[in-house]
Amino acid sequence: MERLPGFRDFYPEPLPHTDVWSADARQYIFEKWRTVARRYNFREYDGPPLESLELFTTKSGEEIVKQLFDFKDKGDRHVALRPEMTPTLARMVAAHERNYKKPIKWFAIPQLFRYEKQQKGRLREHFQFNADLIGESDPAADAELIALLIDALRAFGLTGKDFVIRLSSRNAWHEFYEGRRSKSEGRADPAHEYDFFQTIDKLERTPPEETEKILSALGFSLADVKQFIESGKPTGELESILQNLAARGLKDFVKVDYHVIRGLAYYTGVVFEAFDVQNEFRAIAGGGRYDNLVKLISGGKVDLPALGFGMGDVVLLELLKARGLLPKFDTTTDVFVLIEDESLRAQSLKLVHDLRAAGYAVEYALTPAKPDKQFKRAQELNVAHTVRLDNSDYVCIRDFKTRKEVVAGANDVANHLG
Amino acid sequence: MERLPGFRDFYPEPLPHTDVWSADARQYIFEKWRTVARRYNFREYDGPPLESLELFTTKSGEEIVKQLFDFKDKGDRHVALRPEMTPTLARMVAAHERNYKKPIKWFAIPQLFRYEKQQKGRLREHFQFNADLIGESDPAADAELIALLIDALRAFGLTGKDFVIRLSSRNAWHEFYEGRRSKSEGRADPAHEYDFFQTIDKLERTPPEETEKILSALGFSLADVKQFIESGKPTGELESILQNLAARGLKDFVKVDYHVIRGLAYYTGVVFEAFDVQNEFRAIAGGGRYDNLVKLISGGKVDLPALGFGMGDVVLLELLKARGLLPKFDTTTDVFVLIEDESLRAQSLKLVHDLRAAGYAVEYALTPAKPDKQFKRAQELNVAHTVRLDNSDYVCIRDFKTRKEVVAGANDVANHLG
Repeated sequence: MERLPGFRDFYPEPLPHTDVWSADARQYIFEKWRTVARRYNFREYDGPPLESLELFTTKSGEEIVKQLFDFKDKGDRHVALRPEMTPTLARMVAAHERNYKKPIKWFAIPQLFRYEKQQKGRLREHFQFNADLIGESDPAADAELIALLIDALRAFGLTGKDFVIRLSSRNAWHEFYEGRRSKSEGRADPAHEYDFFQTIDKLERTPPEETEKILSALGFSLADVKQFIESGKPTGELESILQNLAARGLKDFVKVDYHVIRGLAYYTGVVFEAFDVQNEFRAIAGGGRYDNLVKLISGGKVDLPALGFGMGDVVLLELLKARGLLPKFDTTTDVFVLIEDESLRAQSLKLVHDLRAAGYAVEYALTPAKPDKQFKRAQELNVAHTVRLDNSDYVCIRDFKTRKEVVAGANDVANHLG
Repeated sequence: MERLPGFRDFYPEPLPHTDVWSADARQYIFEKWRTVARRYNFREYDGPPLESLELFTTKSGEEIVKQLFDFKDKGDRHVALRPEMTPTLARMVAAHERNYKKPIKWFAIPQLFRYEKQQKGRLREHFQFNADLIGESDPAADAELIALLIDALRAFGLTGKDFVIRLSSRNAWHEFYEGRRSKSEGRADPAHEYDFFQTIDKLERTPPEETEKILSALGFSLADVKQFIESGKPTGELESILQNLAARGLKDFVKVDYHVIRGLAYYTGVVFEAFDVQNEFRAIAGGGRYDNLVKLISGGKVDLPALGFGMGDVVLLELLKARGLLPKFDTTTDVFVLIEDESLRAQSLKLVHDLRAAGYAVEYALTPAKPDKQFKRAQELNVAHTVRLDNSDYVCIRDFKTRKEVVAGANDVANHLG
């Protein structure tokens, strides 16, 4: 029986096949995300992977249903596997925001699902580090969140030579749109502003002639748009964010780049994406302000400004591999207890148990095996030490790096393992 | 908008409502499970939460579909959210077992889903610690796995006064069944052995008269069955397991109890359950040998003996709460940086960043706030220290426990935080 297309099996390393994924790498990535988020005093939350379909269509429109794993459950509820975390977060915050001091700083590492068109290597699920800051409209919140994003990438050993945060703002584009509209005597229809945003979003992926045609129909020219992007003049909010990040020593990781505008309709202000400098991969992370979403999801009951970002595990893993920054996961066992004399098995089991109780990862041969076979297994496991009972009272401890052996009391092993 | 019935929202503590769950407690439980599993040299794996329906019906029969979240996906595949992990594990092991030395010792913490009949408080998902040992038929493997189960419970502070492992064996019951059959001149049909096992499984929850009726139809008497249970004589394999656990100092956590037989059809040998001694809760964990499952799932291609257990997060959490063993999750912030002089904000941001880089969880007021408001927030967060820049060069560090204040160089803060 096969797993479903677009889903991943995560195996312990060394990986048995190129078609499967590393559970060790996944855990390594999750732990880094958690560690950095906690330093920034973001608290972990989670919601159900299955939600009412309505939660997602309320945010994104009926269009999204095509991309969902949606179905009717046995209680005739129309439900869907979550394609993103933000609607769940907005629902949870709206339900209980009164009990939390603002700003709310929360993170999660959900698995997300999309029914993508089937293509080789195209996945239908991934894990995403989501960090959100809710209840603060000041750009200081944007700076705090972007600093977290930068440090979350640096935690993996990535530097300013590897990635850059491209910082932009829908407010800047809104001003551009409004400004040109008045100049051009009202030709640019405010109702078409989102069409305009989407054209900017696709600028780098669309032939110039095509963009020119669309822009012209909306009342703009490509030359004018390009000049605005090239000017790159930060708005007041972006200037404030840049100064805040500079105070932290993080200014070099960010540049204003008005190419970025983000495709989704719900962003309301600052938007940003993390890219690898060599431009080999898709965006590593992306986010921005969505000041209206909590109000929308709560049916108008709760109105809180908010912003957040998402960073997927797949592009990040590709990038870390390409830059040689993924550690080897070949040392998970600390000690191998050799049982060369079966009459000492009971005492050896006690030793195994004591060492585990002291916090060591310990392996041993479950059933009688030749000494050289046990030793070979210890080598394969890349253990730091072997320990062997010489008799009930004394053990022989071998350090695999120094190849030195010491004899110690059977109750005194931990002191020799360092 | 509401979450679906039977699904849980996990919030950061302090919890805003009795209707939601603690993300902190969940993370605490997961970390303990991981830590103990790694000491036993079990490696983490995971598979997709969505699988072909066939994977589950192959193991459990069509009957299980009633309890599943199953649906046709957009590619017309009949799929289901996983109700248990073992079929996925068997599929993964069968696909790549050649690349792993035996025994394979793996664990996972999957979220599992069942469409249970809707009742107040009845959940439709839970997380389960799954540990499995594959490729070793010797009872030493059973002992290793049961030792892990015991230590996984002890890691939470639970003792022999809180829980007991009830150890049994389908082999013992098989011998009983076969023995009585010959005595009763073939009245007990071998085809009805599983019906008999299910009757034993329900013994403690069924009125004696009813059990007597069913047993008698199968060719047995309740008195005989009860006598066998009360004798509690360990089989050879159980004796071997008990001795192995005794060598580790774990014998007191286990007792032979033939009431336990486990409901599922696929168990083939030793079976066990972890119960709270006060018998207030459902079983905390359960498992056993399933030597035929890998062969079944692999269509006969791979034949490996196996055993495993599952421990859910819900009963465990209830038990820990009831026994007062759940820690308070009220200290996640190490340092609050007070910004009392806004002219020092930039330097304070630098300090925040440096402390985070040094590994501390640091909070501060994103926007200007009165000093007493900041101090109050630090108190609410139950921080260990506040740090305040006196000027660009010196900081005042306050220890919240001792209430002592020290002045230190701005670059020397970490040395004073301990």
